[in-house]
Amino acid sequence: MGAPMAARLAQAGHTVRAWNRNPAKAAAVPGVGACATLAEAVQGAALVISILSDGAAVAEVMPATLPDCQPGSLWVDMSSTRQDEALASAARLQAAGLRFIDAPVSGGVAGAQAGTLAIMAGGSEADVAEAAPVLAVLGRVTRVGPAGSGQVAKLCNQLIVGGTIGIVAEAMLLAQAAGADPAAVRAAIRGGFAESRILELHGQRMLDRNFVPGGQVKTQLKDQNNVLAAARDAGLSLPISAMMAERYRALAQQHPTADHAALLLELEARNPGRRVGAAPDKFD
Amino acid sequence: MGAPMAARLAQAGHTVRAWNRNPAKAAAVPGVGACATLAEAVQGAALVISILSDGAAVAEVMPATLPDCQPGSLWVDMSSTRQDEALASAARLQAAGLRFIDAPVSGGVAGAQAGTLAIMAGGSEADVAEAAPVLAVLGRVTRVGPAGSGQVAKLCNQLIVGGTIGIVAEAMLLAQAAGADPAAVRAAIRGGFAESRILELHGQRMLDRNFVPGGQVKTQLKDQNNVLAAARDAGLSLPISAMMAERYRALAQQHPTADHAALLLELEARNPGRRVGAAPDKFD
Repeated sequence: MGAPMAARLAQAGHTVRAWNRNPAKAAAVPGVGACATLAEAVQGAALVISILSDGAAVAEVMPATLPDCQPGSLWVDMSSTRQDEALASAARLQAAGLRFIDAPVSGGVAGAQAGTLAIMAGGSEADVAEAAPVLAVLGRVTRVGPAGSGQVAKLCNQLIVGGTIGIVAEAMLLAQAAGADPAAVRAAIRGGFAESRILELHGQRMLDRNFVPGGQVKTQLKDQNNVLAAARDAGLSLPISAMMAERYRALAQQHPTADHAALLLELEARNPGRRVGAAPDKFD
Repeated sequence: MGAPMAARLAQAGHTVRAWNRNPAKAAAVPGVGACATLAEAVQGAALVISILSDGAAVAEVMPATLPDCQPGSLWVDMSSTRQDEALASAARLQAAGLRFIDAPVSGGVAGAQAGTLAIMAGGSEADVAEAAPVLAVLGRVTRVGPAGSGQVAKLCNQLIVGGTIGIVAEAMLLAQAAGADPAAVRAAIRGGFAESRILELHGQRMLDRNFVPGGQVKTQLKDQNNVLAAARDAGLSLPISAMMAERYRALAQQHPTADHAALLLELEARNPGRRVGAAPDKFD
C-alpha cells in the first residue's frame, strides 16, 4: 500500500524519498528516490510518513530512525496499530524533539491508488493542519482528536464492519429459512434504512458464497481484539463487539484467510441444516 | 400512511374508493371516493389494498369484508404483520375464491407521499405481476417469494435496522471514552465500509442526543419480538437479534416512545459515568 501512496505524492510534485525492507519495492515506484538506508530516507525531511504492518513494526523502525531525523520535523504514522502503541510513538518522538500524528487509513490499495482513502488523523490541530495539504493527495483527511485518536477512529470503523457483517448474515439466513428468496429480500430492502456498504458488498458475497478475500477473517479478529483492548483500557462494556470477537475467533480456527463475510459460515454452524443458497463455498 | 397512498393512486388515474374507521380521514383524501362502509368500498373492485396497524386488525377487518368482495379479485395487504398472520390471510382468501399478496413497506409517510416506498411483495408470480403496475405508483416493488415472504423481508429490514443501531452506539461510545471526538470519527468513517443509513441518520441523532421519534422503541421491540418468533418458527438461532430483543425490552421499560436511537441510553446504562457528548437528552 506504501508504493501507490508514494507514487501519488511524487506525481503531485512533492520530493519523495522511500525506504522499504525490500529495496526492489522502493526502486519500482515511479518518481521516487529509493534509499538504501532509513537514515538516507529521513535526513533533512520536513515530513516523515510510515505505513507498516502493525505497531510492533513501528516500535522497531522508529527508534532506529530517530537519530537521523531533522529536529522539529513531523512524523505521520499511517499504520494501523493499537491506541497505546500510537501514544508510545507520540511520547518517543516528543522526547526526541519531533512531532507525531497517527493517521491510519481505510479504503485499501484501490483507495491508495485513486487518492480516495479515508484518513483518520490524531494529533494537535496545528500538526494536522501542517500535514493536511500533503495527506490530501492520498485521500480525505479528518482530524478526530489528539494523538492516538486516529487509531480509535479506525477501530470504530472496524467494529462497525465486523458487527454489520453479523447482522446481514442473520437477515440472509432468516430470509432463506423462512421461505423467502434471500437475493430478492436483499434487493428489496436496499436503499432504505437497512442500507449499508456491508449489505451491498458482503451481502452479495454471502449470496454467492464467495469467501475469496477481500478483508480476511484473521485481520477482522485482530481488529475485534484491539477493539476489546481499547474498550478495556477505557473501562467500557461493548456487548455486540465482545460477542463478535468470540465468533470471529471461532471462525478463524477453520477459515483464517477467508473473507470476513464467511461469518455466515459461523452462523450456519450454529444452525445445522440451514444454509443460504445452493452455490458451493468459494475460498480461492 | 393510507391517505397519501390513496391520493397518489387517484392522482395516477386509478378509480379509488376508500374506507377508514374515522370517516373524516377518508373524506379528506383528494380525488378519492370516501365510503361509509367497508362493503361499499370493496364492491366490484378488482384490487383491494389494506394498510392497518397490525395483524390483529387485519384478522378483524378481512372476514367482515370478504362477503362483499368480487370473486377472483386480488387483495394486497400492505400492513406489517407476522408471517403466520399473512399465511392465515392467504388461506382465508383462497377459501373464499380470492387471491392474496402481502406487501409491507419501508420508507414511512415521507416515502408514501413521494411514491418511493420499498414494497416487499409475497405472492404468486402472476399475482404480483398483476398488482405491480398499481403498486409502482407507490414505490419500488420487489417480489421476494410466495405469500408470507413480504413479512419476512420486512423483518429482515427491521432486524438490520435494530442491530445496526446497536453497533453504531458502540462505535460512538468507544470514540468518546477513548478520547476521540465522536462527531469527527463519524465524519471520518462515512462513505467507507462502515457507511450505512443508520450511521448517517441515527449516528447523528446519538451525537445530538435527539431521541424525538422517528421510529419508536416500542415499535422496534415489537419488530425484534416478531423476528424471534419467525426465527423460532424456522428453527433458527440468531444471536445478535436475540440480544437486541432483550436490550430493546429493557429500554422500552423506561423510554417506550423515544426514537430507537435511544438504544445509546441502554448502552450508557451498562457503562456508568460514560456518555456521548454533553447535550441534554431530547425526547419531545
